[in-house]
Amino acid sequence: MMKTYLLTPGPTPIPESVNAVLSQPIIHHRTPGFRKIFQEVEAGLKSIFQTEKDVLILTCSGTGAMTAAVANLFNPGDQIITINAGKFGERWTQIAQAYGLRPVEIKIENGKTLALPVLKQAIQAHPGAKAILFQASETSTGTQLPTQEICTAARQASMLSVCDAITALGVFDLPMDRWDIDVLITGSQKAFMIPPGLAMLALSDRAWEAVEKATLPRYYFDFRKERKALLKSETAWTPAISLVVALQESLRLMREEGLQNVFKRHDRLARATRAAVQALGLELFSEAPSTAVTAVRVPGTIADGKLIPKTMRDTFGAVIAGGQDELEGKIFRLSHFGYCGDFDITTGISALELTLGKLGHPVRFGTGVGAALQILAEENR
Amino acid sequence: MMKTYLLTPGPTPIPESVNAVLSQPIIHHRTPGFRKIFQEVEAGLKSIFQTEKDVLILTCSGTGAMTAAVANLFNPGDQIITINAGKFGERWTQIAQAYGLRPVEIKIENGKTLALPVLKQAIQAHPGAKAILFQASETSTGTQLPTQEICTAARQASMLSVCDAITALGVFDLPMDRWDIDVLITGSQKAFMIPPGLAMLALSDRAWEAVEKATLPRYYFDFRKERKALLKSETAWTPAISLVVALQESLRLMREEGLQNVFKRHDRLARATRAAVQALGLELFSEAPSTAVTAVRVPGTIADGKLIPKTMRDTFGAVIAGGQDELEGKIFRLSHFGYCGDFDITTGISALELTLGKLGHPVRFGTGVGAALQILAEENR
Repeated sequence: MMKTYLLTPGPTPIPESVNAVLSQPIIHHRTPGFRKIFQEVEAGLKSIFQTEKDVLILTCSGTGAMTAAVANLFNPGDQIITINAGKFGERWTQIAQAYGLRPVEIKIENGKTLALPVLKQAIQAHPGAKAILFQASETSTGTQLPTQEICTAARQASMLSVCDAITALGVFDLPMDRWDIDVLITGSQKAFMIPPGLAMLALSDRAWEAVEKATLPRYYFDFRKERKALLKSETAWTPAISLVVALQESLRLMREEGLQNVFKRHDRLARATRAAVQALGLELFSEAPSTAVTAVRVPGTIADGKLIPKTMRDTFGAVIAGGQDELEGKIFRLSHFGYCGDFDITTGISALELTLGKLGHPVRFGTGVGAALQILAEENR
Repeated sequence: MMKTYLLTPGPTPIPESVNAVLSQPIIHHRTPGFRKIFQEVEAGLKSIFQTEKDVLILTCSGTGAMTAAVANLFNPGDQIITINAGKFGERWTQIAQAYGLRPVEIKIENGKTLALPVLKQAIQAHPGAKAILFQASETSTGTQLPTQEICTAARQASMLSVCDAITALGVFDLPMDRWDIDVLITGSQKAFMIPPGLAMLALSDRAWEAVEKATLPRYYFDFRKERKALLKSETAWTPAISLVVALQESLRLMREEGLQNVFKRHDRLARATRAAVQALGLELFSEAPSTAVTAVRVPGTIADGKLIPKTMRDTFGAVIAGGQDELEGKIFRLSHFGYCGDFDITTGISALELTLGKLGHPVRFGTGVGAALQILAEENR
């Protein structure tokens, strides 16, 4: 038997009480019982989104919600600005192309974050662009983007801000209404600590105006149908019922901890992880490390960087993420959000130390864990 | 405490062993462990679809897969024939309209089935139509449509047959390859006995040719991306992992019973249900009753037909479906597929007898149940 530990940026581990809910008998979704659950879930989502707006619940992955946002907001030929700081930013561009828009892409070197003058230049050069589409946390490179500043710039230019916060919402502070975020998108298998299958998103009044005017074809993902269904505390189509019921429980856990405490916990775990890998002499990949996931550059001593996640998983049972696409073998990524506590960090770093040792990288065992513990000890819990 | 019994045509009840699987810790979907499960699921789905073609697994509801089929197969302005024998047939027309197609709708009176001459007439009148879109089982009226004949007519006219078999596949025989069905669509919360959140579909070579040529915008639902991912035993986007793992278990149960035995069981339960309601002096709503669900006309003695499903649920704990839209209050529907056995039928009929009695309809208790038992006793299990 090898005991396994899930340390990936989605799916994230599922709390025991949520797993218990998932094994309950299924209920029907057009019943007073389900509507009551749905109402509680809606209220919980609004508090995490920090919004007064409706939060739509779609049965799909995060990419489904990104696609839905494009299909609902725009018209063929519309110009938009996409910020590509990695694989998920690139996805905005690809979706926009698939739907016949004219994306202007700001391409950022992997591991770098957005410099605001670059955005302002793009806005000036393309004053007719309808929206700026970006990630709050670019998971592929472990980079956090300046969401508030991007939204402010969008607002000043009368553009919509469309924020993929799939690995950001519930991880760190993203107050939708206060920061004037027009579209805020997230997914179930991230900070919400339930299995994949649901995406949740909310729209500002300005975004709803665009939805009403948009002409791209949509049916399953039609936000107008979802908003209409919300009036009856329902979804337009049969939802992933068991996941909605699980979400009720995970939102209860988040409420119990308190949203600000959730953010503090994630920040603390992120800093402990960064301290640990740096104490091991490794280099952070991102110049603006995300609170959700720490990307680490593979050291030069290890020729085949893909062996790091593979050895961690196959030899030590710790499932982490490698690099994707052109970053495969060049970085690995340690996640620290969702149902994650101090000893998930020490587990991940312990497995990393053993892995580095096994792969011939010089390690004094305990150096990384010690540095993590130092941060964890300093902080009031 | 009121013990509840789920007797709806989706979600259908979930077997205990499947519920147990749903409470297992989540696994990551880009791992050898998940790929192994995925391969077994793929093989199981092929045997239920009775096809050699790839079966795509999408994370969405059945309506999502219907939308995806339209977006992947057609071009704006394409003419298609839709068969509207109820709410779900009407949905084909609506999706086609939303995507800028020109649907020619064959409208069938509620409760009636398709007369083949009517279809042949429509085909003759619209020889340029690209496809015929229909339901194998129209759940809103409890009507079964002649799938094989429709597919043959489509083939002869060089049109694609696009079959919504969401409440049909795994309920009764629908051999995709043998009947030359071009697109066959189903959903997880029906005969597959797992929660909603997955839709599965397969395409003929002809349908794949249409997919390659189609120009409608698609990204999340792009079948080409899904087929490419299948080569690696993966989905294009993060799937509803827990539901895929649950599907492995429910497919194991179906394999253990044997597909032909599954069909026989459903047929036997459908006939017992029909016999029971007729013995109670009630009238079947459909002239071609579906093996999946029996629609029953509300008797004239009961002024407010909505009280039948409401009383069954709130007083007796038996959750059945009422009529939808214009059929609300006019029919009610008893489901008998999925994880359903003899005593789910006697439970449903018992609850119906008590409900009729409570609502003032004359009932000699046991008449319906007796008729059901008569059928169940005659049949070899």
